[in-house]
Amino acid sequence: MAHDNATPARLGDSLITLDPLDMRDRLASGAMRAADLAAACIEQVKRREADVQAWAWLDEQHVMTQAGRLDAQRKTGRPVGPLHGLPVALKDIIDTNGIPTENGTIIDKGRVPTEDAVIVRKLKAAGAYVMGKTVTTELAYVAPGKTRNPVNPDHTPGGSSQGSAAAVGAAMVPLAIGTQTGGSVIRPAAYCGVVGFKPSFGMIPRTGILSQSPSLDTVGVFATSVAGVAMLADVLCGDDPADHATTLSAPPRLLATALSDVPVRPTLALMAHMPGDTAPSEDMALAMQELSDILGEDVFALTLPILFDEAAEIRERINFAEMAKCYYAYERRGRQQLSDITLAAIDAGKTVLARDYLAALDWPKLLNAALDEIFARCDAIICPATPTSAPAGLSSTGSAVYNGLWTLCGVPVVTLPLFEDSTGLPMGLQVVGRRGNDARLLRTARWLTSELKKTSGVVTNV
Amino acid sequence: MAHDNATPARLGDSLITLDPLDMRDRLASGAMRAADLAAACIEQVKRREADVQAWAWLDEQHVMTQAGRLDAQRKTGRPVGPLHGLPVALKDIIDTNGIPTENGTIIDKGRVPTEDAVIVRKLKAAGAYVMGKTVTTELAYVAPGKTRNPVNPDHTPGGSSQGSAAAVGAAMVPLAIGTQTGGSVIRPAAYCGVVGFKPSFGMIPRTGILSQSPSLDTVGVFATSVAGVAMLADVLCGDDPADHATTLSAPPRLLATALSDVPVRPTLALMAHMPGDTAPSEDMALAMQELSDILGEDVFALTLPILFDEAAEIRERINFAEMAKCYYAYERRGRQQLSDITLAAIDAGKTVLARDYLAALDWPKLLNAALDEIFARCDAIICPATPTSAPAGLSSTGSAVYNGLWTLCGVPVVTLPLFEDSTGLPMGLQVVGRRGNDARLLRTARWLTSELKKTSGVVTNV
Repeated sequence: MAHDNATPARLGDSLITLDPLDMRDRLASGAMRAADLAAACIEQVKRREADVQAWAWLDEQHVMTQAGRLDAQRKTGRPVGPLHGLPVALKDIIDTNGIPTENGTIIDKGRVPTEDAVIVRKLKAAGAYVMGKTVTTELAYVAPGKTRNPVNPDHTPGGSSQGSAAAVGAAMVPLAIGTQTGGSVIRPAAYCGVVGFKPSFGMIPRTGILSQSPSLDTVGVFATSVAGVAMLADVLCGDDPADHATTLSAPPRLLATALSDVPVRPTLALMAHMPGDTAPSEDMALAMQELSDILGEDVFALTLPILFDEAAEIRERINFAEMAKCYYAYERRGRQQLSDITLAAIDAGKTVLARDYLAALDWPKLLNAALDEIFARCDAIICPATPTSAPAGLSSTGSAVYNGLWTLCGVPVVTLPLFEDSTGLPMGLQVVGRRGNDARLLRTARWLTSELKKTSGVVTNV
Repeated sequence: MAHDNATPARLGDSLITLDPLDMRDRLASGAMRAADLAAACIEQVKRREADVQAWAWLDEQHVMTQAGRLDAQRKTGRPVGPLHGLPVALKDIIDTNGIPTENGTIIDKGRVPTEDAVIVRKLKAAGAYVMGKTVTTELAYVAPGKTRNPVNPDHTPGGSSQGSAAAVGAAMVPLAIGTQTGGSVIRPAAYCGVVGFKPSFGMIPRTGILSQSPSLDTVGVFATSVAGVAMLADVLCGDDPADHATTLSAPPRLLATALSDVPVRPTLALMAHMPGDTAPSEDMALAMQELSDILGEDVFALTLPILFDEAAEIRERINFAEMAKCYYAYERRGRQQLSDITLAAIDAGKTVLARDYLAALDWPKLLNAALDEIFARCDAIICPATPTSAPAGLSSTGSAVYNGLWTLCGVPVVTLPLFEDSTGLPMGLQVVGRRGNDARLLRTARWLTSELKKTSGVVTNV
């Protein structure tokens, strides 16, 4: 059941209901000041934060100061960046110079970095500012933080980027950044009813962000529209000599491509069932069936080759082995201050043999070769973002079983808040593209949302 | 004791006594045909191969055909590459299209690749041709092949690139290529009395070359002069999207820099003792002392920080863990056909934990930070290439204990055949540069050889 004070009903014509692109345009034209937008965000924080608990650090004075400074800067007439005046929320594992970054653990209580993460420098260069830091699960793994689902606070918002997804879902901020090692962007986005985008592995540099599993960790973004995530991701992409996953390549032009028309009507491969034992809920299965009916000849049914059944175990092996190494210092400094579930993962990682770990690292190449054959026949794969809507209670952040496969493969994924379950909780549709084809994926996703606007049914939130 | 028919005494004015640069220039000016050089090489092969056993595959007809084709091509007046007409020997772990590549194991008997390794394509594009394939130890590890030391066939030529070093040492070919994972370029070069160059890790692409330990495997080159190795390495460098160790960067201009004058008189850090328990032989210690006396104020004594004492164990851990993974297929196909020493390394690698392996991968960064402080005070580090001259017998390829450290750090190393022991066997001086500063290292090394030409003493072969 949608909560009484949920978005967007009570917001009326508040600035924060605008699409992030409209915000950008109004800021650029002078129709809106950054300070106006900041004030609208702060107002919404005051309205929703007690329920949602999305923020690990937020300072009203900081927000208003940044917005005022950017308004003044625009008035000088000097060139400004593409996000000038827009506030962005950052998962609290992303280092911010002079602003606490506590990585969701008491072990890092009071930790204040003296350098910005590379993406924070990029954000600032683009004219955006740090609205605040958002709650993360413990060390970006699965032990929940305090955040609640903005649509129904009795339910989890998902994890690990729970504060970022919930802050956008509660319309407290138009744009947010998180990370995904298993399903930590797509799952909370789906549960909170927003658009989440996990780009291809290596698109966005990670220097200055907590490292859990360097072969999997991927920066992702949240907004209320596909154009919004494209606009934000666009400024974050690029080569970083300190992050070996990134490569020198031409700017992906995510936003320009996402806004362009599809050259031909896309074909989609629909996976009603994902590899593994977890079947979608009745509501999700029904939604996928209706979607299939609506799309008709634009989709064909896809079942992944048996090879993919091992992907979850392979991903976990890589994740745990690297976590055991990356979190060694945390374990040394405060093993007794870590949750049992985090320790269990670290301890499992300690038993992984190097040879098995190295063999696991070969899998993404194998799996992508299989995916390439599928992408030769379609523009994107569509499948449920999660098996269910957000589970009740806050003790678990839900299941990432439908997400880890795509993280392992490093393919770009966007989740669209297209569905609702019978209680009004949002459910997401994952749209998956070929590795490196992020711009095309976003264009296909945007086409899909506009196609579905022409219809009705369980497909609601478009 | 130098063998009766060793180089260069018996060669007289044969073309193969020329410096590789002179060969290049004579070929370019028309003063020498590729076919003349090829014939001189073949003649020397006939003279020395029965003793030295450097070649795994060599076909006189192939050599003469290639040389003739390149002579004809030059006559057309069309542009030619920088190595046009020069023969190059390749370690038999480097794939050659249509030419057997057996990796030093009976398991690969009769294996004929259908594609050239990336560096073979680069060689051919530069106008060089494959003279033949040279003997490698089993799978480029330590179990010896048939090759003997060209200076004294009762001694080992070193390993694993034993055929490449010996072929250049016996003047059967002017240029050769090998690989180093521990000390497999520098050690055989030192034992065989030639110049060996192991560039910075990632300078030369490895696609199409047997992978033993991807975090350590480094392509290196052999010639009779510093200019020769610089000329050859120059055409091999570059980015390779299939080899993640390589990066897009400007051409290093190794040869042009090596041939240029030093801007100021270099300062060298002399390490008489390397980390670990293995002391240099009396002959080597004496040679280093004399060198120190000759260089006088140009050197200062260097002892590495205690941190470096662990480097050997760290390098071995990485090497064995990756070997266990990379050679898994060999073990499956023919465990009983592999030597005990190779199997022992593979089996040791199987026990390495992923976390310890990943922790080991952090060491090169740490060690290079320590080296950077040293390189702030000197142009290069000089130290013995090996503890001793080539040991007697063929059952072992000698000790790489002075080389593995530099391989782990990924720093560029050149060995100069400056010394002889009391029996006339060559000994090498390692000259070590800062990672990425390969061109400057070669310039310093060339300066050093020309300085020492002005003197006499144990320092003989300059």
